[in-house]
Amino acid sequence: MTWKDSLPMETLAKERSNPPFDLDAMKVANHGSQERLDFKRKVMLELERNKAFYNDDFYDLTKDELRVRTFIKIGSIVNWLQTENLDLFHQRLAVISVADPGFWTRFGVHLGLFSNCVRSGSTSGQFAYWVNQGMLACKRFYGCFGMTELAHGSNVQGIETTATFDENTDEFIIHTPNLGATKWWIGGAAHSATHCAVFARMIVHGKDYGTKTFVVQLRDIDTYETLPGVTIGDIGKKMGRDGIDNGYIQFTYVRVPRAHMLMRHCQVTRSGQVTEPPMQQLAYGALLTGRVMMAVDSSNIGKKAITIAGRYAAVRRQFKSDPNSEYETQLLDYPIHQRRLMPLLAQAIAFQYCGQQLTHMLEDTTRALDALEPGDPRLMDVIELLKSTHASSSGLKAFCTWGTLSAIEVCRQSLGGHGYSSYTGLAPLYNDFAVHCTWEGDNTILALQLGRALMSAYGESRNGKKQGEALAYLNDIDATLRARCSSNEELNSLAGIEAGWLTASAHFVKVAYDEFQRLMRAGDSREAAAEKCSQLRFVAASVHTTGFIFRQFRAAVEAMPEKNDGVKKTLATVALLYGLWQMEEKAGFLLRSGWLKPEQCDFLTVRVTELCAEVRSFAIPLIDSFEYSDFVINSPFGRYDGNVYREYFDMIRRNNPPLKPHPYFETLVKPLILRKTQEVESVGELMNLDEEIEEIQVEMKEALEAARKA
Amino acid sequence: MTWKDSLPMETLAKERSNPPFDLDAMKVANHGSQERLDFKRKVMLELERNKAFYNDDFYDLTKDELRVRTFIKIGSIVNWLQTENLDLFHQRLAVISVADPGFWTRFGVHLGLFSNCVRSGSTSGQFAYWVNQGMLACKRFYGCFGMTELAHGSNVQGIETTATFDENTDEFIIHTPNLGATKWWIGGAAHSATHCAVFARMIVHGKDYGTKTFVVQLRDIDTYETLPGVTIGDIGKKMGRDGIDNGYIQFTYVRVPRAHMLMRHCQVTRSGQVTEPPMQQLAYGALLTGRVMMAVDSSNIGKKAITIAGRYAAVRRQFKSDPNSEYETQLLDYPIHQRRLMPLLAQAIAFQYCGQQLTHMLEDTTRALDALEPGDPRLMDVIELLKSTHASSSGLKAFCTWGTLSAIEVCRQSLGGHGYSSYTGLAPLYNDFAVHCTWEGDNTILALQLGRALMSAYGESRNGKKQGEALAYLNDIDATLRARCSSNEELNSLAGIEAGWLTASAHFVKVAYDEFQRLMRAGDSREAAAEKCSQLRFVAASVHTTGFIFRQFRAAVEAMPEKNDGVKKTLATVALLYGLWQMEEKAGFLLRSGWLKPEQCDFLTVRVTELCAEVRSFAIPLIDSFEYSDFVINSPFGRYDGNVYREYFDMIRRNNPPLKPHPYFETLVKPLILRKTQEVESVGELMNLDEEIEEIQVEMKEALEAARKA
Repeated sequence: MTWKDSLPMETLAKERSNPPFDLDAMKVANHGSQERLDFKRKVMLELERNKAFYNDDFYDLTKDELRVRTFIKIGSIVNWLQTENLDLFHQRLAVISVADPGFWTRFGVHLGLFSNCVRSGSTSGQFAYWVNQGMLACKRFYGCFGMTELAHGSNVQGIETTATFDENTDEFIIHTPNLGATKWWIGGAAHSATHCAVFARMIVHGKDYGTKTFVVQLRDIDTYETLPGVTIGDIGKKMGRDGIDNGYIQFTYVRVPRAHMLMRHCQVTRSGQVTEPPMQQLAYGALLTGRVMMAVDSSNIGKKAITIAGRYAAVRRQFKSDPNSEYETQLLDYPIHQRRLMPLLAQAIAFQYCGQQLTHMLEDTTRALDALEPGDPRLMDVIELLKSTHASSSGLKAFCTWGTLSAIEVCRQSLGGHGYSSYTGLAPLYNDFAVHCTWEGDNTILALQLGRALMSAYGESRNGKKQGEALAYLNDIDATLRARCSSNEELNSLAGIEAGWLTASAHFVKVAYDEFQRLMRAGDSREAAAEKCSQLRFVAASVHTTGFIFRQFRAAVEAMPEKNDGVKKTLATVALLYGLWQMEEKAGFLLRSGWLKPEQCDFLTVRVTELCAEVRSFAIPLIDSFEYSDFVINSPFGRYDGNVYREYFDMIRRNNPPLKPHPYFETLVKPLILRKTQEVESVGELMNLDEEIEEIQVEMKEALEAARKA
Repeated sequence: MTWKDSLPMETLAKERSNPPFDLDAMKVANHGSQERLDFKRKVMLELERNKAFYNDDFYDLTKDELRVRTFIKIGSIVNWLQTENLDLFHQRLAVISVADPGFWTRFGVHLGLFSNCVRSGSTSGQFAYWVNQGMLACKRFYGCFGMTELAHGSNVQGIETTATFDENTDEFIIHTPNLGATKWWIGGAAHSATHCAVFARMIVHGKDYGTKTFVVQLRDIDTYETLPGVTIGDIGKKMGRDGIDNGYIQFTYVRVPRAHMLMRHCQVTRSGQVTEPPMQQLAYGALLTGRVMMAVDSSNIGKKAITIAGRYAAVRRQFKSDPNSEYETQLLDYPIHQRRLMPLLAQAIAFQYCGQQLTHMLEDTTRALDALEPGDPRLMDVIELLKSTHASSSGLKAFCTWGTLSAIEVCRQSLGGHGYSSYTGLAPLYNDFAVHCTWEGDNTILALQLGRALMSAYGESRNGKKQGEALAYLNDIDATLRARCSSNEELNSLAGIEAGWLTASAHFVKVAYDEFQRLMRAGDSREAAAEKCSQLRFVAASVHTTGFIFRQFRAAVEAMPEKNDGVKKTLATVALLYGLWQMEEKAGFLLRSGWLKPEQCDFLTVRVTELCAEVRSFAIPLIDSFEYSDFVINSPFGRYDGNVYREYFDMIRRNNPPLKPHPYFETLVKPLILRKTQEVESVGELMNLDEEIEEIQVEMKEALEAARKA
């Protein structure tokens, strides 16, 4: 007998019996502070009790239903938007993003992309005007972000929508000159938005000044009919996040007042005099926030995925490895299953510390940007800061979202066949998350940008310019390149792992730089050379970011106070697993850099397996410390109590009630299954054709023979 | 000006202007023969003209709509089922699987799983009986395959449904003893099936004989009401393939005649005497076919993905790498984009030759199995053959499906933001394909099984037993292990790559075996030792299969006749790219085996980049040679003519017509956007509370001072 109704719950309870750390202290460590933890609990409770966020039927909603539901949520969130300070409100949104990624985006397009764009791009008078129009409160106002076009994505400078200044009327004429210039993917355009921040090439007195931003009203506020010259369409079904009403927009000679151009960085006077900003990128600060939030989201969603896969792996039993045991073996007790999941548990925590660090960088940068006035002498310093934050956030956005996307898929597959059911939650999560890899900067392009920044920093450091913290390993490059792993003890330490990645990073940055220089010496233009060594740039960015993530994790752990609560010790073990696992995964890079020797890899493999077993021993309480409620997880497989099978079965029955009549028996099944085709012999047989032919032939033969005899 | 309506078409036409091979000859090479190519064209034409297969709205269909559509297709396919020979019919299904994977599965459960299971498990009399009942023609009969249970997947021996023999009535009693034993994921159960091949523990005279197969009728043929004791439910929404009506089944003491047990391998007499088969696995031949078809499908679907991503990459332009050129640069001209896509093009072709080879192995095995009679002396030979086919097909199923799944995702991301649209086709393809990694043998479990087979073969070969072709590298193991890459010339050759993988395979098989032996010597049981070295087994299986796939590709290319049509030369280049790319990707394994040295990796990177550029030069005609019609590809991005933007725009407009009224303006948007909350000061302000308090305080202060003075 291998079945007992209460076995799953008992199994999970037992996993929690004796953690090597104080659970409450671990929760605080994982949330930054007791206050943040308490606030998160409050938000989860409010969401669970808010009918707008009812989610038992979430996985069965069609695209159209999801859009309606999502708008209902928007209606319920504005209450907090108006009463909560912005930091708390963002914490709230981060929780909601785990429960419903599509809602987060749909609202985030207005609050994050549109409003940030207006805030960072407008003069204080312009900003006051748009706030007064209802922008922040979502009253008679809902914004969308019109950057990408059908034929233009990552290349913002290449977009083709035009904004032509008409000095006679003091207006800009917004126009979509061809199909490829159609604004595309615009979240909120199909059903929600009243206004759009339109990126368009500014043409003044015949001169093209490149891409600037203009606020354009799309719809009549009272009827939601599109205004004359504005064409809006729905772009329909997507891989996930179907709650967002993405649309396309075409402008046919739409006029807006000159003052609707955002003029903090670039100014146009009544007579058409243009003052350009020292650096175009200042205008794209809005995208920075999105990237940082995606790095943070990578940790949160990774935690959601491992909550589902980890708890299920504790409950699920399969095969008996010990013939004497009463029950089949828990999946989590199989070394191979530990190998699949424990590194991903460690990764979600690594990304968490990384996200915290990146958030601090963003706050510093935003403060500095906001403080800038036209003509400010601090401008160049701020641009340096912006560049550095841009490089780090680009790399982290790319490699954290890729890391979590594949983590979700590994978690999904670790559920076996059940991972293919929508109700277990990971398949929809994959579909919702996947867009992070391509929007707001395609991951590959972002990684290449980081690669370019790395090469350029390397070049600077060779000329004696000291690099900041993230690139300090370039400052004593020769020593870094020469470093070798001295022993298994070094390999098996946080300091050793950090040293290994520094050497590998330096190696591959140097390789990319040297090739870049070689190509230019051989006659290639700067651009051509950069393209030709793009694979090397990509590798440099990947290795650098791997090391960067590990360093944030290590630094956070080492900065923790020594207490008796087991938190620091536990997280140090987790960090060790994360570091060694990444080394094993990317061993080729460490071997090529010379830091590691092939024979040392065997030790790596042994240690990763051992550490997986060690982390497995406290995996369930560690997952508990992520503190996501059953409501937010919304998967019977990730339930806190472990009652997986009963809840899975019941959830499926609730959403597919068995009493419905067969939907197409009469119309389709019956005509097929009960079809009455004649089981005919061929038409030839019906005619007795072949028999008659044979008879005829016999007759003719006889006649012939008779004739011959005659 | 960067836009011209005809530019996409002109660009794609130009790509085809001068291929280094004869396109028709390449098409034949990629299809095995002219006949197969012609038949495929015929099938594609028939499908496109068959209204049941209409697919312009495919990506917008809900689960319920998809199920109806899929059944309509079944109604239209039986025509060919009854008139076409089985080989042709399977070729037909392979084409359909590329157009509609869900249909392929829904029908395949009946035709492949159920019918093969009955065919391979029944005596000739039993088979004749079920054919007579309408099994093959789908008349008054539709089969489903009742193997997995809610709590039991990969461990078939652990399933809990019981079939208890009742000697009094000569019947088996089929029973689901608990919730976990509910038959789960059963394709066709929810709406289609009349009969089920139920896997259940056979209990005769109180003794449990383990899992056997029983044909159980589920529904009344004339009404489709479930029969007494049979409970069926719908398991609802899935990640993909929603056209399949997967369901669950519970049996409550359902009686079937003894003769409904399939008795080719295990027999039960009237009095309950049981004759058991020499090897349980003989009963699972039905699963073998599925695995082989999935390896074949991995190639076909990989080709579909690269058709979409490759043609789009030729058409899409972004940034100008050369400031003097008239238009932006084609994505396909960027080295990094070549790096993303060209290896996947090569992989799809590598999998094709692998699938062909595996299909031959399966045919040989099936022939041998079918020829077996009870008590046949050739039994042990056939079991050896089955074991070997099982091992190879397990590894290929696992690593080919994983390879193609990540290829689809890379292709999807290579479309940038558009990859997230359902209409571009790759997102739905990912969702449909993903199930291949977990069903009919979870990939990780299958890889471990291969790993175990490899260890055991290594042990045998150490004891002098010669291994067959797939494992011939174990026969002279010491020389294989000692081999080293002598030069860049060797590395840059098909023979060299093959040698490298042989050494790496031998190395990791040996590592796994040695650790396994060490653990057993240290006191672990065989099972415990095998579990502890599961990661090593997994690595051995991965490295072995990588080498195996490459060898099939190389062998197929080298077996081609030398002609003047450029086919062999082109494919040799593609094979070289595939081989070197895999080496670069998995460099860690080659370095650890000692075959490759770290400094040789730089050459590897250079050559992969060069070969990507070379394959790029003929990528479009090579993709054309896969010969999938626009209908089958069903993606505006993969169109033959390259008219990407216009067709994408039009497809989205057709499926999301702009004239629909706003679906929730009155009910949801208006109440929010036009809400008339009072812009109130707080209630305190309304009462003038604070002013009054201040006045009171002033008065009191004055009064106090007056009192003091007094």
